[in-house]
Amino acid sequence: MKIFYECIPCILNSFLHLAEKTNIGGNRKEQIFRNLLIYLSQMDYSQSPPVMGKKMQKIIREFSGIADPYYELKKESNLKMLEIYNKFKCKILSSSDQFLTALKLAIAGNIIDFGPNHKIDIEQTIDRILSEPLAIDHSEKLKEDIAKANSVLYIGDNAGEIVMDKLLLETIAHPNVYFAVRESAVLNDATKEDAEFVKMQNVAKVITTGDNAPGIIIKDVSDDFMKVYQNADVIISKGQGNFEGLSQEEKNIYFLLIAKCNIIANHLGISKGQAVVL
Amino acid sequence: MKIFYECIPCILNSFLHLAEKTNIGGNRKEQIFRNLLIYLSQMDYSQSPPVMGKKMQKIIREFSGIADPYYELKKESNLKMLEIYNKFKCKILSSSDQFLTALKLAIAGNIIDFGPNHKIDIEQTIDRILSEPLAIDHSEKLKEDIAKANSVLYIGDNAGEIVMDKLLLETIAHPNVYFAVRESAVLNDATKEDAEFVKMQNVAKVITTGDNAPGIIIKDVSDDFMKVYQNADVIISKGQGNFEGLSQEEKNIYFLLIAKCNIIANHLGISKGQAVVL
Repeated sequence: MKIFYECIPCILNSFLHLAEKTNIGGNRKEQIFRNLLIYLSQMDYSQSPPVMGKKMQKIIREFSGIADPYYELKKESNLKMLEIYNKFKCKILSSSDQFLTALKLAIAGNIIDFGPNHKIDIEQTIDRILSEPLAIDHSEKLKEDIAKANSVLYIGDNAGEIVMDKLLLETIAHPNVYFAVRESAVLNDATKEDAEFVKMQNVAKVITTGDNAPGIIIKDVSDDFMKVYQNADVIISKGQGNFEGLSQEEKNIYFLLIAKCNIIANHLGISKGQAVVL
Repeated sequence: MKIFYECIPCILNSFLHLAEKTNIGGNRKEQIFRNLLIYLSQMDYSQSPPVMGKKMQKIIREFSGIADPYYELKKESNLKMLEIYNKFKCKILSSSDQFLTALKLAIAGNIIDFGPNHKIDIEQTIDRILSEPLAIDHSEKLKEDIAKANSVLYIGDNAGEIVMDKLLLETIAHPNVYFAVRESAVLNDATKEDAEFVKMQNVAKVITTGDNAPGIIIKDVSDDFMKVYQNADVIISKGQGNFEGLSQEEKNIYFLLIAKCNIIANHLGISKGQAVVL
């Protein structure tokens, strides 16, 4: 998927929104912002959004002088989600269709917000997603494919959200699952440290993409990741970033996401806020 | 008032929103957008927002090759508002406090939106503004000042909205009112053509600011405007653009506006969407 220049105001807003919650000094933020504007004015919009995200995060790291500006934010997010893990676990265990409930919860986790109403946002989103049918629903086919797969690759997205991914993997209980995180810090995307923090290793072999783009850029991933990717019978891709990078690929990929904006929603032919298993 | 870099995503969104409704060709829009990003990356944020708006509109005109990209939009907006003029007039005439009702209607007109739900947005906003008290209310003092003023200067903002300004001026019925519009096309701001279209000349002497910034930049206005400005006993300034340019001035200025965003709302110590006579 290419970059739509109409997305740029929203991308800049995400930076401002996240930057507010980091320890990047006030003046530094304006400098970084100006550098992002220069970069965005020049970049090739025919590339995929993760290429842009990777470069933008490089600018943020270089100008802030902070290797992981969202470190605390991610930690907080993991902690908050772990606090409500038991509640989610019960929701799944008491449900008549545990796979579908866990799947919907994992998708709902994709909308995790770092605002002051953090918990409320998540719980409201979860209740809505659980009560609505999926706007595009290939979940039955996904379930069948997992059942006969020798190897499953699950590509994670954000910290916090991975608690929900773990719940889904516990429900799936497949013996040979790889869970991929980013090689190093980028935005609020989950890294190995986050995966270990939520004990993802109990349900999957944790690997990294070998890259620190906030989405998959096939030409930039490591050989090790590529081997797992090529051998996987089923790939589960979480969130918009991974979708934007993988939507053109020919593999057996299932995309789990919420359309967080009108551009993605229009692209998928659904409404903003709706969830899909695609 | 200075420029907050946090406002830039919103400013870019406004451009995209308006540009969608003009006849600027698709490719041209991306070129213009890239040029706006370059300009915004370099500009001095200690200037007032109208300085930025003026330069941005110059870029849009130069790159689109269209002197007034929003011409049709303004015309449509004037027409739509004139269509519902009688309804507003009756609302004022049947009200127990005609001045306050006309004042609130004029402020509500400041939120005129060009989206598909145009009419609904306006009517909803009007109903809300009429039913709520003003968040900051210097309307009594304004009424008294107008009563004893020899000369009143009313600085207009957008096309369409000026129909509501005219209704307020009809209600005030002061014998010596100047109504100022922009010298030439800038954004959807009202020009002389718009003022004539709604027959503003029946209730005021229509003048221009001598400048085409989307707000007052004192150092750029014409001598003629400056003379009227200096001699006016009361100045009524409509909208955020004029507020941003005049908020530091020492004259007897009343600002009529709705806080359309959190930055302006925080600056005024009110909530987003609230109306003020300041």
